[in-house]
Amino acid sequence: MIKASIVRKEHFNAAHRLHNNMLTDEQNKKIYGKCNNPNYHGHNYELFVKVTGYINPTTGYVIDTKYLSEIINNKIIEKFDHRNLNLDVEELNGKNPTTENVALTIYEILRKEIDNQYEMKITLYETERNYVEYPA
Amino acid sequence: MIKASIVRKEHFNAAHRLHNNMLTDEQNKKIYGKCNNPNYHGHNYELFVKVTGYINPTTGYVIDTKYLSEIINNKIIEKFDHRNLNLDVEELNGKNPTTENVALTIYEILRKEIDNQYEMKITLYETERNYVEYPA
Amino acid sequence: MIKASIVRKEHFNAAHRLHNNMLTDEQNKKIYGKCNNPNYHGHNYELFVKVTGYINPTTGYVIDTKYLSEIINNKIIEKFDHRNLNLDVEELNGKNPTTENVALTIYEILRKEIDNQYEMKITLYETERNYVEYPA
Amino acid sequence: MIKASIVRKEHFNAAHRLHNNMLTDEQNKKIYGKCNNPNYHGHNYELFVKVTGYINPTTGYVIDTKYLSEIINNKIIEKFDHRNLNLDVEELNGKNPTTENVALTIYEILRKEIDNQYEMKITLYETERNYVEYPA
Amino acid sequence: MIKASIVRKEHFNAAHRLHNNMLTDEQNKKIYGKCNNPNYHGHNYELFVKVTGYINPTTGYVIDTKYLSEIINNKIIEKFDHRNLNLDVEELNGKNPTTENVALTIYEILRKEIDNQYEMKITLYETERNYVEYPA
Amino acid sequence: MIKASIVRKEHFNAAHRLHNNMLTDEQNKKIYGKCNNPNYHGHNYELFVKVTGYINPTTGYVIDTKYLSEIINNKIIEKFDHRNLNLDVEELNGKNPTTENVALTIYEILRKEIDNQYEMKITLYETERNYVEYPA
Repeated sequence: MIKASIVRKEHFNAAHRLHNNMLTDEQNKKIYGKCNNPNYHGHNYELFVKVTGYINPTTGYVIDTKYLSEIINNKIIEKFDHRNLNLDVEELNGKNPTTENVALTIYEILRKEIDNQYEMKITLYETERNYVEYPA
Repeated sequence: MIKASIVRKEHFNAAHRLHNNMLTDEQNKKIYGKCNNPNYHGHNYELFVKVTGYINPTTGYVIDTKYLSEIINNKIIEKFDHRNLNLDVEELNGKNPTTENVALTIYEILRKEIDNQYEMKITLYETERNYVEYPA
Repeated sequence: MIKASIVRKEHFNAAHRLHNNMLTDEQNKKIYGKCNNPNYHGHNYELFVKVTGYINPTTGYVIDTKYLSEIINNKIIEKFDHRNLNLDVEELNGKNPTTENVALTIYEILRKEIDNQYEMKITLYETERNYVEYPA
Repeated sequence: MIKASIVRKEHFNAAHRLHNNMLTDEQNKKIYGKCNNPNYHGHNYELFVKVTGYINPTTGYVIDTKYLSEIINNKIIEKFDHRNLNLDVEELNGKNPTTENVALTIYEILRKEIDNQYEMKITLYETERNYVEYPA
Repeated sequence: MIKASIVRKEHFNAAHRLHNNMLTDEQNKKIYGKCNNPNYHGHNYELFVKVTGYINPTTGYVIDTKYLSEIINNKIIEKFDHRNLNLDVEELNGKNPTTENVALTIYEILRKEIDNQYEMKITLYETERNYVEYPA
Repeated sequence: MIKASIVRKEHFNAAHRLHNNMLTDEQNKKIYGKCNNPNYHGHNYELFVKVTGYINPTTGYVIDTKYLSEIINNKIIEKFDHRNLNLDVEELNGKNPTTENVALTIYEILRKEIDNQYEMKITLYETERNYVEYPA
């Protein structure tokens, strides 16, 4: 049995604001700067989901990317795309939507959908110049 | 005298919502779909400013791109980046921030800053798959 | 009334072979080289459709990109994606699928679908390093 | 001795069809959908070859990328570019050319050419949105 | 007869320094800033050559991109790649290698090689964020 | 405590020449080919700095990318951008500026600035087709 990784890229556009309710407004302003704008700003997020497992000898696939794409679309894109990450996404309720926290949340949602025989890794681009990998 | 065009690319991240106050909520919903989300969504905007004019025989430049970049940063990026295009940008007040209207507004702001000997053109990417050119 | 252009990008993956039935096999081999492979090769085509017209004062749109995307998907992507351009696409029947001819055919199909108040332009990338614009 | 990785990118354009001869036509259709088109479709494949080893103190290279590029061109690009992966590539004979299987085959060809002091990894993009890494 | 444009992309890596011998060192420093470094800096230049003409009814080509690529490689890449634009390129002798002047020089070299039935346009990227078009 | 990686991308433009002073001119010519041009050539370098550590429960950050960007700009970009890597960069004195050696030097400079609780990795693109990772 031969192990390989397959990666599927999807994207969503969302508004967000970095803000920790446990901190004062001044502290938030100091830590997050212009990312703390109370009226929100936004990004085109690029999401890469890597799935690692054995190549199925019948299909020649680690996992069917059409199936993987459907899961990502049903469980992530439907919920995150054209939304406000502070207000509209149940799984992010009460969380500060830093790229780290959004990537972690996406991982946790998808981990329940992808069979445990597979390892999973999320790479989330907030901009072309900033991205997060989880797990590290 | 030899004419050429020089293009400078800058970017900004912003939240927005497509909504026309003269229309009913139902009409807005019908026209703009998920772009009408009252809680906003957002984008990484990529802005290309093209300036066309004669190559200066002394400098070898149509226009100094450092100077062009400073103007774009001072007049556009400072005002648009990490902002809400419906609430935070004076020049967009009362306008519906479609890519067309944002590109037109950017053109009008920059046109006052760039000497009239130059022609100007704006290309504004809202996503990798949707962009606007103004003038056409 | 203000004129602007909006561009929508879509993509399709297809096999093709460059071959002119009016020429001998030797002539075809000489003109098209490895692109003449009788077993076909293929590309990820990137298609940009530019529509130029007046910005509608009510919608703020030149044309709704969701509508434009639907037309391109229904009339082009459905027919061209995961197909053989020599064998599977009715509108290319008897044509030699050079990038020039494919771009021209896409233009002709879409021109019937897009209202005549709009100008249209096709840019078709066969590879990152070769692309065609029609009209010139 | 200091260890680093160097990556070289090359590309090829090819036609293929996903089909397992051990399965019925209905099963193939169900598993591979439009990728099962008997007339083939195709892609611009982007191939990244990563070589990991010690930096040679004399040359300052892990491996000379010109040499690496020549090997990839002689052993892979010459055989795969502008070809049909189901019909024209000896090393893929009898294999179903999924991205996983193509990446694995490329690895096996190159592994014989690259000295064993080096680790090797293949990343193969079938489209901008689907790619495979081998070994995982 | 149907007119279309075909574009071919090539690239070269070169060192350069912006400096006008007719100006004092202080003036050069003031105009060109860090681009005036006497020890040179450098770029990965991306060169797009657009050729516009009638689609040949026999070949289906405006111009054969293999032929176009050969001309660009023989006349430009061979001379400019891995060179110092101030010292090594005969056609740039005595010229200040701003992107404008380099694009203009490339145009003049290629214009002699491309049949006059074709229109030509050069787009030269010095960086991802700065590029020149000639003619405008 | 949850571990993730964050990556920040920066860029610089520089001239360089591959040359080992311990070798003869003929040996240098043989090993480095056109990269040995005594008048230098140059590149747009793309630098990715990956920092791996625990997500801070207060900030939601592994590390503040604004802070990371400032360090990279102060310690690397200020010194490398628009410079000659053979002549102008103190930390590269006496080193042969292969991509491997430049990446290693950047790592060593930044490693002193980034707290030891974090792991660090450098990816340095010399061109779109050649890049180095350090550590491997």
